[in-house]
Amino acid sequence: MPQFKAPIRDFKFLLHEYLNVSQYAHVDGFADSGDELMTPVLEAAGQMCEEVLFPLNQVGDKVGLKYDNTDASRPPRVIMPDGFKEAYKLYVDSGWPSFTCATEYGGQGLPDVLNMPLMEMVCSANLSFGLTPGLSHGAYNAIKLHASDALKSKYLPKMVTGHWSGVMCLTEPQAGTDLGLIRTKAESMPDGSYAISGTKIFISSGEHELTENIIHLVLARLPGAPAGIKGISLFLVPKIMVNDDGSLGEHNKLICAGIEHKMGLTASPTCMMQYDGAKGWLVGEPHKGMRAMFTMMNAARLYVGVQGLGIGEVAYQNALAYAKERLQSRALTGAKEPSKPADPIIVHPDVRRMLLAMRAFTEGARALALEMALKIDLAHRHPDPAVREESDDFVQLLTPVVKSYLTDGGFETANLAVQVFGGYGFIKEYGVEQYVRDVRVTMIYEGTNGIQALDLVGRKLPHAAGKYLRAFFHPLGQFIEKHKDNPQMAEFIKPLAKNFEYLQQATMWLAANGMKNPDDAGGGAVEYQKMFALVALAYSWARQAEIALGKTACDEKEFYEAKLSTARFFMQKILPQTTSLLQSIVAGSKSMMQAVI
Amino acid sequence: MPQFKAPIRDFKFLLHEYLNVSQYAHVDGFADSGDELMTPVLEAAGQMCEEVLFPLNQVGDKVGLKYDNTDASRPPRVIMPDGFKEAYKLYVDSGWPSFTCATEYGGQGLPDVLNMPLMEMVCSANLSFGLTPGLSHGAYNAIKLHASDALKSKYLPKMVTGHWSGVMCLTEPQAGTDLGLIRTKAESMPDGSYAISGTKIFISSGEHELTENIIHLVLARLPGAPAGIKGISLFLVPKIMVNDDGSLGEHNKLICAGIEHKMGLTASPTCMMQYDGAKGWLVGEPHKGMRAMFTMMNAARLYVGVQGLGIGEVAYQNALAYAKERLQSRALTGAKEPSKPADPIIVHPDVRRMLLAMRAFTEGARALALEMALKIDLAHRHPDPAVREESDDFVQLLTPVVKSYLTDGGFETANLAVQVFGGYGFIKEYGVEQYVRDVRVTMIYEGTNGIQALDLVGRKLPHAAGKYLRAFFHPLGQFIEKHKDNPQMAEFIKPLAKNFEYLQQATMWLAANGMKNPDDAGGGAVEYQKMFALVALAYSWARQAEIALGKTACDEKEFYEAKLSTARFFMQKILPQTTSLLQSIVAGSKSMMQAVI
Repeated sequence: MPQFKAPIRDFKFLLHEYLNVSQYAHVDGFADSGDELMTPVLEAAGQMCEEVLFPLNQVGDKVGLKYDNTDASRPPRVIMPDGFKEAYKLYVDSGWPSFTCATEYGGQGLPDVLNMPLMEMVCSANLSFGLTPGLSHGAYNAIKLHASDALKSKYLPKMVTGHWSGVMCLTEPQAGTDLGLIRTKAESMPDGSYAISGTKIFISSGEHELTENIIHLVLARLPGAPAGIKGISLFLVPKIMVNDDGSLGEHNKLICAGIEHKMGLTASPTCMMQYDGAKGWLVGEPHKGMRAMFTMMNAARLYVGVQGLGIGEVAYQNALAYAKERLQSRALTGAKEPSKPADPIIVHPDVRRMLLAMRAFTEGARALALEMALKIDLAHRHPDPAVREESDDFVQLLTPVVKSYLTDGGFETANLAVQVFGGYGFIKEYGVEQYVRDVRVTMIYEGTNGIQALDLVGRKLPHAAGKYLRAFFHPLGQFIEKHKDNPQMAEFIKPLAKNFEYLQQATMWLAANGMKNPDDAGGGAVEYQKMFALVALAYSWARQAEIALGKTACDEKEFYEAKLSTARFFMQKILPQTTSLLQSIVAGSKSMMQAVI
Repeated sequence: MPQFKAPIRDFKFLLHEYLNVSQYAHVDGFADSGDELMTPVLEAAGQMCEEVLFPLNQVGDKVGLKYDNTDASRPPRVIMPDGFKEAYKLYVDSGWPSFTCATEYGGQGLPDVLNMPLMEMVCSANLSFGLTPGLSHGAYNAIKLHASDALKSKYLPKMVTGHWSGVMCLTEPQAGTDLGLIRTKAESMPDGSYAISGTKIFISSGEHELTENIIHLVLARLPGAPAGIKGISLFLVPKIMVNDDGSLGEHNKLICAGIEHKMGLTASPTCMMQYDGAKGWLVGEPHKGMRAMFTMMNAARLYVGVQGLGIGEVAYQNALAYAKERLQSRALTGAKEPSKPADPIIVHPDVRRMLLAMRAFTEGARALALEMALKIDLAHRHPDPAVREESDDFVQLLTPVVKSYLTDGGFETANLAVQVFGGYGFIKEYGVEQYVRDVRVTMIYEGTNGIQALDLVGRKLPHAAGKYLRAFFHPLGQFIEKHKDNPQMAEFIKPLAKNFEYLQQATMWLAANGMKNPDDAGGGAVEYQKMFALVALAYSWARQAEIALGKTACDEKEFYEAKLSTARFFMQKILPQTTSLLQSIVAGSKSMMQAVI
């Protein structure tokens, strides 16, 4: 009953008009990034998402997973819903896992910015499915950046093709946000390997039968390691041992001890993993496991943000289609379709408000996500060190903003879809309530959105006397300056400039007061993070409007007119949220810290 | 794993200190409303909710309902989760259904304001369970107010005891918000009854085995009835025919054709009902069915609001308990419990922000709900017609505000509980995600919150040149005037006065612009409704603070200190939301109505 169409037109707009990615043709991996070459690739990805992954989404939710430990002669299994195995095989056979992987391990070497549309569409189509390849890519990155050449050549090629998957094993029952409390142990073995023992929870895709092997990256403590976060090391622990010739050997000493029953993502196995002297190898240096985590964290957090965006997109599409079809009551200004028993609900201003809020989010968030992916690419690949540094500054600053706003917004958008559907929104068959349930955890995992805010306010703002901040504020100030006397742009530039001013006020308040009282920074951090995102979206919408203003006479007039009207809606109806946030921030933390709770 | 404690202390505070209900001892039903008599009743209700209903909540969600149509010799059945039947029997045996029913039909005749705490606690403990008696009470009211004496004496006594339940049957597939589109037909029979034929959907508790009989109140059209909303009549249609001696006869020609699979409330049967010439009797006059609905709508909408509040309360309690227990990271200002491996997360300002937002909602919403219940009582029972009229004005005005804010707030609060729980919040076992799923539909049923906003802006504001509005604005203005020079109250009165000013600005803008362009009223209605609720809560918090200021030296110092600190938090961190809402309202509807969607 629900529907999904890959939003190819918006991807093309953002990649080729908004970001103009082919200007980077000289950068490694960008040679083939032009519209003509990329569009067929996007279309093929879109078709797979629409035709293969999306039809499995509702059935996956309904059927869920089966944990099977009935056969004592073998480790417990997790049985996926029908169709997932075949879909994963097709995904692998089509070469999608290798898209952005390094050519030296068999990858296609393409930049992240071109991969983001695929990621988003997979999340729209089937988030439960998407987690396995998504997390696997993170594990690939960690190994590629930190493991020895021997480990890399043994494990990466099969991970690049997708025949093996990878998982990140961080959380323990007593150690979630606070990974310094991790207890899993690693003991050195005579052969240079380590024996890993402990329990990890909430391990997404920790066990499944989609791939021949699963490569666990496990955080654990070496004997005598320093207490806390500085005593944690990272280990590569394969589910099935790999022989020197690359063939598979015995099952390692690890099992999936159970799977969680969750609010959503019911077709994604969330596993409790037990390591009982499992054989593993150190990745990177002893006690520097968190450093390895941090280097891949920006990409991982962007990916979680894109999960929120993907759900937001499919929720919006369904709400829009329903609002055009559902006949109920008449327009406030008189019947719009008098021949029908009632008008379609899209005539009602409040329904339009909800739909436009959804679209202002999805198209604004997509622009932000793609820009951040591009900056990640430039930070790694650009030949000019100054561009690399500036791009990295942008990524450091915007990572918590993107992760939090895209997941909060995805949840809000899914909820608005339920509201547009009315009573039908609460019924499983119609599909939209699943989006609310599936997306909810994205506001929590990979660092809760409150933790993102502490990262933004506590680490990113003060870094090098505000250096990261300048990577965003400087170009934004220049953009405002450039357009300040352009009458066509005035309706976008004026609110942008005013709200940028508010954001600067909040920044200064936090810097001044947070120094004296860290609770003042912590207490306003979530609100500041939202303010920041609103201004970042306003900046993006102003730039999207700038392009659209030059195109309203072209063949695709309606596409650009829609861009302009969504930009206007954002400026008038969404952006004013900043003023309340500013007031709340400067009220300080006293009412929270001194409260009797 | 989750927990629930009946919030008796706050009920006592609100009933006896805040509303001082015993001042109405001369009003019918209020004679026994004093603290000494009511507290044991509240405690008994609380105990039943804690010990009987609450333990069934998670199991009800997990097991759900079974629709059984396997036995062709009898109509399909809906089988409730184990324990529900026994709990309902206990509920009936304890006399709770009759609490506020008229003494002439066997009720106890107590006022609604004393029943609200019971309603709220039942919703906190087990919302799926609560819907059956809750809706039944609405059906009782409709029959009592509109049916003939013959119907009343035949049906009401068993409904009052709870041995029979009642259900409201309004929605059809093509007629949800727009009941004018109803197609169910009623044909006059020679014996004075009517034959009802048609299909109704989303009928909560339409079929179950908790009671011996189910009395359906069905909206249908008589032959030749005017088109639309003015041609709808109300019929009483029993599931089992009732003989003249009160004994039960044959099954009527109605069946439950199926039940919905829903996001939440999975232990509450949401039925598709088919009437195939079912025997029914007219309630009230022909074509005046909607009028009968409207007279009970205020109480019904308050009750839905209380569902949101009840879920908010239990969600808050669990988040608070978890935040005190869960050890993770250190306070920003240095370790608070150095002997433990980490501090409890309640030390973190953002966690405190979430908890206080939850409590500011639940305790503010409870005050509003109880005040509205009292006004409903006074509107019906007070001997002075001026008091009746003024009370009714208040109820008319506040009904959409209470229904929408308490359900939006309940959902938001449940979501915050999930966020406080982190990853555990997403896991079914911990119980808080169920609150999000269960409460979601309250923002939709009994008139979506968008429809509430249209009622507020389109009907309630303009009524009799703003007469309803004065029932709220006038005492609020007096309160501000009274305290404006009181230095102790300044921190509450100043923000209240400022935001009341904003609300008046928004009201004037809507009145002026909505007249010229109804879309301007419709486009800002939801935001206005939220502004209204925020100011209503600020008014309540200022009054709660006023009482607490006089009590900080008493034995229960901590209770009153907590009231003061929550009031401060509300004024500083929540109330500022009004400024953004005002800006968005006065931006008008052009950006929505002219947008290309």
